[in-house]
Amino acid sequence: MSIDATHDPALRSWVASANDAATDFPLQNLPFGRFRRCGTGEPWRIGVAIGDQVLDLRAAREHGAWPPALASALDALAAGDLNTVMAAAPGPRRALRAALSQALTTGSSQQQALERCLVPQSGIELTVPCAIGDYTDFYTGIHHATSVGRLFRPDNPLLPNYQWVPIGYHGRSSSIVASGTPIRRPLGQTKAAEAQRPSFGPCQRLDYEVELGFLIGAPNALGEPIAIDAAEDHLFGVTLFNDWSARDIQSWEYQPLGPFLSKNFASTLSPWVVTMEALAPFRAPLQRPAGSEEPLPYLDSRATREQGALAVRLETWLQTAAMRAAGEPAVRISSGRADEAAFWTPAQLVAHHTSGGCNLQAGDLFGSGTLSGPGADQAGSLLELTRGGKEPIRLPNGETRAFLADGDTLMLRGTCEREGFRRIGFGECAGTIVASPAHS
Amino acid sequence: MSIDATHDPALRSWVASANDAATDFPLQNLPFGRFRRCGTGEPWRIGVAIGDQVLDLRAAREHGAWPPALASALDALAAGDLNTVMAAAPGPRRALRAALSQALTTGSSQQQALERCLVPQSGIELTVPCAIGDYTDFYTGIHHATSVGRLFRPDNPLLPNYQWVPIGYHGRSSSIVASGTPIRRPLGQTKAAEAQRPSFGPCQRLDYEVELGFLIGAPNALGEPIAIDAAEDHLFGVTLFNDWSARDIQSWEYQPLGPFLSKNFASTLSPWVVTMEALAPFRAPLQRPAGSEEPLPYLDSRATREQGALAVRLETWLQTAAMRAAGEPAVRISSGRADEAAFWTPAQLVAHHTSGGCNLQAGDLFGSGTLSGPGADQAGSLLELTRGGKEPIRLPNGETRAFLADGDTLMLRGTCEREGFRRIGFGECAGTIVASPAHS
Repeated sequence: MSIDATHDPALRSWVASANDAATDFPLQNLPFGRFRRCGTGEPWRIGVAIGDQVLDLRAAREHGAWPPALASALDALAAGDLNTVMAAAPGPRRALRAALSQALTTGSSQQQALERCLVPQSGIELTVPCAIGDYTDFYTGIHHATSVGRLFRPDNPLLPNYQWVPIGYHGRSSSIVASGTPIRRPLGQTKAAEAQRPSFGPCQRLDYEVELGFLIGAPNALGEPIAIDAAEDHLFGVTLFNDWSARDIQSWEYQPLGPFLSKNFASTLSPWVVTMEALAPFRAPLQRPAGSEEPLPYLDSRATREQGALAVRLETWLQTAAMRAAGEPAVRISSGRADEAAFWTPAQLVAHHTSGGCNLQAGDLFGSGTLSGPGADQAGSLLELTRGGKEPIRLPNGETRAFLADGDTLMLRGTCEREGFRRIGFGECAGTIVASPAHS
Repeated sequence: MSIDATHDPALRSWVASANDAATDFPLQNLPFGRFRRCGTGEPWRIGVAIGDQVLDLRAAREHGAWPPALASALDALAAGDLNTVMAAAPGPRRALRAALSQALTTGSSQQQALERCLVPQSGIELTVPCAIGDYTDFYTGIHHATSVGRLFRPDNPLLPNYQWVPIGYHGRSSSIVASGTPIRRPLGQTKAAEAQRPSFGPCQRLDYEVELGFLIGAPNALGEPIAIDAAEDHLFGVTLFNDWSARDIQSWEYQPLGPFLSKNFASTLSPWVVTMEALAPFRAPLQRPAGSEEPLPYLDSRATREQGALAVRLETWLQTAAMRAAGEPAVRISSGRADEAAFWTPAQLVAHHTSGGCNLQAGDLFGSGTLSGPGADQAGSLLELTRGGKEPIRLPNGETRAFLADGDTLMLRGTCEREGFRRIGFGECAGTIVASPAHS
């Protein structure tokens, strides 16, 4: 990934709102999403976010003038299919980005034709940005792994494999939902430490996890590992990701095969995929605590050490039902940076995941794992912020939260900033907790 | 599921080989698969196995005479799409079975039209029978869980949650392959107990796991659990399933989030789905060791206790490269019965999986977990048969195996027998180990 003309901070768009300093979606971003006009029930379309508008790529295919080499990519996008474009090699993807950037730049001859292809974001609904294949959740947040490990094993918080193996496990794809989808509190089996027997009922320790989502682009064949130096070519883009977690269900079920129902009731993905090309200016060195082990050769490269991480600032905002009723805005309950949290880079995750021959496909999703920073106020879950629920956080209106309550809205935001570049953002990743179903 | 006219053992087919007592596929079975004629590269078609033939449902749709109510199901099948039919309610599925049974019965007026829709199984290749969605692997084999637990925790082999929670975890869908696909020995990270650091190289403890695969039919909506009494209506059918396992990779990677690369390099599914309707005569009581805990109410019903299990006899056969070269046939290395191995029924797995709101979709796959019987020769993995590799098995030609060697072919077979009914079978679930890729 290299910085090119599409990242020039002087570029301005004829879409006026894209030039607003506060927008997540300036001309330098150009993330993809799947949308439709509210209330129409029409088929999902692929669009590119630009300021407070979406460029409808089905309409843009029809009304715009595009390089002939992009015809098949634009045909797929016009049909609502992002996966085909994701599966392409980086070259065609960069060509598409360049063409979109030029078409939306002030002075483009395409302005008149494309103006009628814009749809206001205020009038659309969004779903997950592509057909998601397999979903894998990693555990790259070393401060999270240490804090959570300390709750269970005070003297030995990090397991011996952590610094060698990019720990991950398979997750549930069917229940990955778009931002805004209500999150129903799960029922489940739990057992209090002092209880003789488990019981079944609504989760009492409902939590969130702040993660980045990495969407896979170009596939590999079964049995053919992807070398670390080729791994970036298989990444398509990045989203925000909330891996909702039922802590009481998790602690009872997870031995010996890992989390299951405690995680698979829902996970929320932000609707806009920020491409690896857009993120080129925001790559950062891999930061590891002093004294950390060096990775084995199959996980190591100069490129991934020097610029494999992602300099994304992550924030978590909470609005309770009482706050909403009183007209009070959401409050920020934590913030941190992905590159200060992650012990492994996305490329290392690709190399590890395929090292045994597992085949990745376009649209597969990797979760980064909870990205907690080293500071106490940088934690990416309530489990950490409240020390296992023992020290509830206090909100400005006097409410407290050890874990999430029905009616709470939790929202993640992500931004990339660097001197000399336009700030870009990820949009929102939000969900509101609703009550469990009735049960007998 | 009830026994009806399609199970009458006196029924005979005009396809002569279906009347052979040794066939897995008599008229009473009628499993679905996806096939094409060898070497044609034509699109996959849906067929029904009958004796040593396949009824091509695309041709049968065109040339046969079918009840109008089956038109949409047959249209989907003719297009190579089994998932749409899987998603239907049990009523339409039973009607389809009845129509196929009548059409293939001796004396059917359809014989002449359908004879030209038969393709010999010797001339076809088969893939996985449907588009597989999410894959979940359970751990229902209590003797397996106990034996494996004993290797790690001699005094406390079964964890406290085992008898309460149907333990399961999410697996990898993309690497599920059809019977016959070569299995490449994975590379991976391992650490010997005495080593200071892990190393990376070919798996040294490659194993298989004998499982049944349960394919989901009718879906549920996200947030809407399936009650135990409705769970059978969401099961479409059963296959054989081999969950290949890299034991050395597994023991180093699996804490704290469960198996990952040790399992996701490949899993083999048998190509024919034996439907729940075909299995109706072969249901059995849930058998649990004396003194076992009673399930919580959401996992309990009279129907599942009295006839929730599956009376399937499972066998494992091994042929090494040396045996193949010498013209020696495969040898059976273990056999057992699913209903003597499983602590939970398929319906209990459906009820548990959805109890927190997780949505199932047509084509989702559940693995039963390794189905080892109580006896030492009934174990469903080499890990158990060889006591962790310490007591290799000896083959008739003098070779020994602690774990699988390159060139070994491992084959699972499954059959259902009951007095007064035709024996039905599952066909083969086979794979041959090939060497790891080169690595530096």
